[in-house]
Amino acid sequence: MELREKFGLNVRRSRKAKRMTIEVLAHQSELSYSYVGEIERGLRNPTLDVVEALARGLGIDVATLFES
Amino acid sequence: MELREKFGLNVRRSRKAKRMTIEVLAHQSELSYSYVGEIERGLRNPTLDVVEALARGLGIDVATLFES
Repeated sequence: MELREKFGLNVRRSRKAKRMTIEVLAHQSELSYSYVGEIERGLRNPTLDVVEALARGLGIDVATLFES
Repeated sequence: MELREKFGLNVRRSRKAKRMTIEVLAHQSELSYSYVGEIERGLRNPTLDVVEALARGLGIDVATLFES
């Protein structure tokens, strides 16, 4: 599985574990709703700054988003 | 510390642990020498595809590059 897909699945898994909607995560990460949705589906190639914003929005350590 | 800096330090630490030069890592990651050097110094904002290429070039798991 490509990193983009694995990362997207980890974002979704972490978001659901926090019972957070995409709207709330998008707001807390200062990203658009559609962009977060596309990242979760592995359709985007985000940069480290976006990765950091998502981890901050989820309130978790970045490493969690790269677990196998 | 920003994620870009932490990531860069982790790339350098992993590369040195493998006694690998920047030239060899750049070649194995199919990235330019200068770009890898700038990533290590925290001067760049790489995408997940570049992160994946560096992990492959280093022969390590991506998560290692996001350890604290």
